[in-house]
Amino acid sequence: MAIGLCLTSPPGMCDELTESLGLKKINVEKKKFPDGEVYVRIPVPVAGEDVVIVHTGFPEQNDRLIEVMLTVDALKDLGAENVTLVMPYMPYARQDRRFREGEPISIKTVLKTLSALELDNLVVVNIHKEYSLQYFEGTSKNVNALPFIASKIEKGNDLLVLAPDKGAVPYAREVAIALDAPWDYLEKFRDRVTGEVTIKPKELDVKDKRVVVVDDMVSTGGTLALATRELIKRGAKEVIAVVAHALMIGEAEEKLKSSGLKKVLTGNTLAKEYSTDIVEVHDLSPLLSEVLKELGVV
Amino acid sequence: MAIGLCLTSPPGMCDELTESLGLKKINVEKKKFPDGEVYVRIPVPVAGEDVVIVHTGFPEQNDRLIEVMLTVDALKDLGAENVTLVMPYMPYARQDRRFREGEPISIKTVLKTLSALELDNLVVVNIHKEYSLQYFEGTSKNVNALPFIASKIEKGNDLLVLAPDKGAVPYAREVAIALDAPWDYLEKFRDRVTGEVTIKPKELDVKDKRVVVVDDMVSTGGTLALATRELIKRGAKEVIAVVAHALMIGEAEEKLKSSGLKKVLTGNTLAKEYSTDIVEVHDLSPLLSEVLKELGVV
Repeated sequence: MAIGLCLTSPPGMCDELTESLGLKKINVEKKKFPDGEVYVRIPVPVAGEDVVIVHTGFPEQNDRLIEVMLTVDALKDLGAENVTLVMPYMPYARQDRRFREGEPISIKTVLKTLSALELDNLVVVNIHKEYSLQYFEGTSKNVNALPFIASKIEKGNDLLVLAPDKGAVPYAREVAIALDAPWDYLEKFRDRVTGEVTIKPKELDVKDKRVVVVDDMVSTGGTLALATRELIKRGAKEVIAVVAHALMIGEAEEKLKSSGLKKVLTGNTLAKEYSTDIVEVHDLSPLLSEVLKELGVV
Repeated sequence: MAIGLCLTSPPGMCDELTESLGLKKINVEKKKFPDGEVYVRIPVPVAGEDVVIVHTGFPEQNDRLIEVMLTVDALKDLGAENVTLVMPYMPYARQDRRFREGEPISIKTVLKTLSALELDNLVVVNIHKEYSLQYFEGTSKNVNALPFIASKIEKGNDLLVLAPDKGAVPYAREVAIALDAPWDYLEKFRDRVTGEVTIKPKELDVKDKRVVVVDDMVSTGGTLALATRELIKRGAKEVIAVVAHALMIGEAEEKLKSSGLKKVLTGNTLAKEYSTDIVEVHDLSPLLSEVLKELGVV
């Protein structure tokens, strides 16, 4: 029986996954020393075993990265056979290229490191850019959770699925298929001098529509709040966001509430309890369980 | 002219080192995003250049590690030739072996990672155990700063150099040579059940002596405070500590003051300003500058 190793899991996910996959559930012993260093220990023998680590990269991304580096290296030292990391939120994925000369490609650094530590398989949820996974040397899989999350929305011919920018179009298309609804997109402009973001809706009829805005993540909520105001101004009946990762940094909750947004539907990809007035979290374990079975790693 | 790249340097050290080595001083642009991720950028071309990074691993060790990983990877991507990291405080060095089955050898994970990112040379100051450097694949050098720091103490035939445990004996011996003084050691016992530390002084005459206690670091100050009380009880005229790294975690300052300790002399190995009533920080740049010249990396 393979081992399901719970490191820093989204609440409940490690229980669900180990249960549905028939894994032997083991909690990594972990703590933080008074000096700020992290400590992990795998409390069972792992020699010759296949191991699935359930761990995510937010919040406190740097602590989470060091934890998983230590754990993977220890597992390999101790003779674990095939090591799979299920990491729903992959930190540093937004720095996927050199936007300015002299920058690191941070996601490359992270994935190169996990490769060097001999991680065999990596499963992530809606990584910011799928092409980033090229930097991982083992087998990798990017799970698109958005159609699954969007399926919680009641269907109807008043639905319109909208990508808040061109980058999110592929996601919007898949969600539209899942909801039997049409889709479209907005155009986002960032002023290169002031950094200010404006949204230019194309000729788009949203009057009396329930508009589903689809993106990989909401971070500080600025863009989503802006889009919501614009859509409501143009007569949308209701605006709902569907995102894989609801980071909700700083004043995001207040910002989104005051914009008129009804809900943010999201997956449980983060290591915190975070259902709020506006955020509705859905368990992705059933989806991830299927993916892990298909991958044949358990 | 090689580049001296200031990342998270102990205050002043990067200025001193780049000046004395004749390096072109460049500050890494860095910040922390609102979501907690770190950002670095090297604002000059580095293709074909030799680069010396000045960076240390305390406080906030995990942030410091991710920063240096990103920086080294970016430098190599951008074509830097020979990359040397001067990292006076090496985090995770105390987890230098598996104290219990199932633990990582954390310092190995860290050094394996820096090797995988193709760092060429590594210079550290009094790493907890020198044998840990075997895990780094490039050229490495452990600088013993203790004789240099101890040389700030006035010589005299009332001096006795003392290692607080057997592990610190090699350090005490070198400091004793630098001070023309005799040396000895204490024995430290840790109760395996309660974790309590007691010190058993051997038959040791410290009466009217100025006792110099030598160790690689002071962390929470517990052991050093215990040793100081014991020594004063036995008639020591004065107790001074010489350590490479004065982490001074939690109540260390108060603990050491109330034990009767006179001073902690230390090197500037940490990225903070930390001279206090009891801690006296000495600049190690002249020492490191000599080591870098000898290594031939600049």
